[in-house]
Amino acid sequence: MHDLVVIGGGGAGLSAALTAKKTNGGANVTLITDEKLSYSPCSLPFVIGGEIESLDKITNDIVKICEESGIKCVLDTVDSVDVAGKLVRTAGGVEFKYTSLIIAVGGVPCVPPISGAGLEGVCTLKTIEDARKIMLLLEKAENAVVVGGGAIGLEMAVAFIKRGLKVSLIERSEHVLARSLDPDFSKIVEDELSRIGVELVFCKDVLEICGEGSVQGVRLDDRTIPADIILLGVGLRANIRLAEKIGLETICGGIKTDGMMQTSINDIYAVGDCVGSKSMVTGKFMLSQLGTTAMRHGMIAGINAVGGYATSEGVLNSMILKISDLEIGRTGLTVRDAMENGIDVVVGKAKGTTKAPYFPGTKTIELKLVFDALNGKVIGAQAAGEKGVAGKIDLIAFAIAHNTEIMDLMKLKYCYTPAVTPSRNLIVLAAENALRNLRRMIEVRKRRF
Amino acid sequence: MHDLVVIGGGGAGLSAALTAKKTNGGANVTLITDEKLSYSPCSLPFVIGGEIESLDKITNDIVKICEESGIKCVLDTVDSVDVAGKLVRTAGGVEFKYTSLIIAVGGVPCVPPISGAGLEGVCTLKTIEDARKIMLLLEKAENAVVVGGGAIGLEMAVAFIKRGLKVSLIERSEHVLARSLDPDFSKIVEDELSRIGVELVFCKDVLEICGEGSVQGVRLDDRTIPADIILLGVGLRANIRLAEKIGLETICGGIKTDGMMQTSINDIYAVGDCVGSKSMVTGKFMLSQLGTTAMRHGMIAGINAVGGYATSEGVLNSMILKISDLEIGRTGLTVRDAMENGIDVVVGKAKGTTKAPYFPGTKTIELKLVFDALNGKVIGAQAAGEKGVAGKIDLIAFAIAHNTEIMDLMKLKYCYTPAVTPSRNLIVLAAENALRNLRRMIEVRKRRF
Repeated sequence: MHDLVVIGGGGAGLSAALTAKKTNGGANVTLITDEKLSYSPCSLPFVIGGEIESLDKITNDIVKICEESGIKCVLDTVDSVDVAGKLVRTAGGVEFKYTSLIIAVGGVPCVPPISGAGLEGVCTLKTIEDARKIMLLLEKAENAVVVGGGAIGLEMAVAFIKRGLKVSLIERSEHVLARSLDPDFSKIVEDELSRIGVELVFCKDVLEICGEGSVQGVRLDDRTIPADIILLGVGLRANIRLAEKIGLETICGGIKTDGMMQTSINDIYAVGDCVGSKSMVTGKFMLSQLGTTAMRHGMIAGINAVGGYATSEGVLNSMILKISDLEIGRTGLTVRDAMENGIDVVVGKAKGTTKAPYFPGTKTIELKLVFDALNGKVIGAQAAGEKGVAGKIDLIAFAIAHNTEIMDLMKLKYCYTPAVTPSRNLIVLAAENALRNLRRMIEVRKRRF
Repeated sequence: MHDLVVIGGGGAGLSAALTAKKTNGGANVTLITDEKLSYSPCSLPFVIGGEIESLDKITNDIVKICEESGIKCVLDTVDSVDVAGKLVRTAGGVEFKYTSLIIAVGGVPCVPPISGAGLEGVCTLKTIEDARKIMLLLEKAENAVVVGGGAIGLEMAVAFIKRGLKVSLIERSEHVLARSLDPDFSKIVEDELSRIGVELVFCKDVLEICGEGSVQGVRLDDRTIPADIILLGVGLRANIRLAEKIGLETICGGIKTDGMMQTSINDIYAVGDCVGSKSMVTGKFMLSQLGTTAMRHGMIAGINAVGGYATSEGVLNSMILKISDLEIGRTGLTVRDAMENGIDVVVGKAKGTTKAPYFPGTKTIELKLVFDALNGKVIGAQAAGEKGVAGKIDLIAFAIAHNTEIMDLMKLKYCYTPAVTPSRNLIVLAAENALRNLRRMIEVRKRRF
């Protein structure tokens, strides 16, 4: 009999357990988790902001999900793994034998070493408990400071605005989403944040979080911003505590796995936010830490851990955010990513409308495509607009994964009706722009000889 | 000096003229058209239905567009072409010499040979003039009958409903959009039409259009439906009058062209609704007659006719319609198309939500993917829902054009945020369903031996 133990009940762990049971119904699958509820952490800011009515709407009972699928669910924490004996030991003192093991212990929000970071009112957001704590604080908060302009920081800034707070967002670098977008597209997001009233403070470090017992403000080099609540959104550390205990190899701060999600030790797999992922474009490792990546990891490990065969094709970090009325999406490499990887690029840009320009209710949408100048292959995209962003990003992600070139995108067989789409497709327009830019590069080069 | 003459100022002709001028700025480009306005015929039903305020919103002055682009615009009709002398003669008696010629004379709405088809109040819809006539009739119309359940028929049924008329739609076959969709997806459209109050009458022929001077009703075999206005939406005939005069080869009722949009006579190209198009999947000719096909034809011929090089990759007939609140889209082959072409298929279906299921404002969306069972390649898709249909159809159209398989779609690197998209992508779910169906087929086969 095959015994699979999965540690962690988040998206990656649950998807691994469910897929394993589907792949091999005869396997004993045990899920050990310290979280009784299953939910998408991505939805927490929308509950906090009041767009989703309550936490009940987004949660499901893990024990029930497991029961319905024939998975044994254990509410406990794993303390140690005996690799030689193939045993997992929980804090509760129970031992589980495994044939294969999947580690899905997620990530831990970073807390920067700032004085005052431990004060009441200083929050991070990862779990349901974090969300509950924030919602409680919000009942009497008036001023919020968000530290960090990443996805969570921006979504929480919007949530605080929706709850009627005065909001300042402090970002060390020159732009929000600086790791996901190029500056031109960061700027679009910044304009939307400013429009709804978020004060943006760039190129500043938080020197101190002030307060006695509970937080009162954050001190920058030139002023102190008052705050009753502070959200630290400065990144997620891969949780590699257990992996280090076991002696698993790590990479880029996450657990290292091969193409089958197996770690450096046979029969131990790792998935989700605690794992380093390989970029489909550059082949380099990075922390992907997206819900979609976690689910895909989980499926692959779940299949492999019970005798099936599945491989990971790598990640593109396709992402979409809703920042107030703006949808912002990206996939693959930005221009900056490409430069850091020594890839010469050609860029194609287009600005258009979601429906025909004359159709009532039409909205603007912008798209930027990034191509490798050496072979014309598309390697990245960024899009922003009030609607229709997801479809464009998904299509370009598919195009990247299938090695397609500028001309391939120009020939896209898109659909058109003025009530839903414009007659000239935005992807085609951006690809045409890229071709013109490539020809211009060729002309410039010609003239030099 | 290169002289290009383009006959016809619709989407195909104008796109050909503009592309030619961009490709070769030194070429003399002359556009001969009997239509002073440029517009997308697809938008006419929405003006008639009142969603777009007026015809002015959707029209542009062709003469002005041509002037701005350095194209000579002649408002006239072409009567004959002297192929040997390379001359075009207009009804106005003017002659134009050409080095290359592009024929873009479009299509003519079919009028079935029914008694009473010439009565006042019996309309077709292709031109601005048609739309004006219909809008005038609407001022005192109460009952409308639409004959034909194709795209124009359905959009006009919705327009009539929006204008407060009682509407019956008569379709010869068992379903609306029977040439574009499989019955299961036609049914979704029919439900939406019924919901908004369109009476649907299937499997009936119109035996007579009754009235004296102006129309009073249509007679079926079992009853007469009263009508003050009748819209004939029974198809578009390719306009091959001029082509036959010249002696051009035809195919499937349209002008035959090669991969460069050149007809059977050198230096004469043909584009748009008057042309037969080659299916990218089956390689067979058909009438495509979509705005997107017309524009792509125009670009290819425009480039080739002035010394550039471009080829036609064929068509997928990607299409989207907005039927009241429903978006309905399709691309490639339906199951029925595949069967008619002797292709064994595997189908994958999925029903999902546009946003996360728990997010307020989420809508349902359904997708059906059609795969070739012999090689697992995706060959078609149909989608229906209140939102997000276009992105799915475009992506599958791209996937068809790039020879991708079930597993490729299962690995789609889609983007996710609960406010915009669900955590499980509909394309992935439909592909997974197809894989399960394929495995079931394999199992059934195994058991037979």
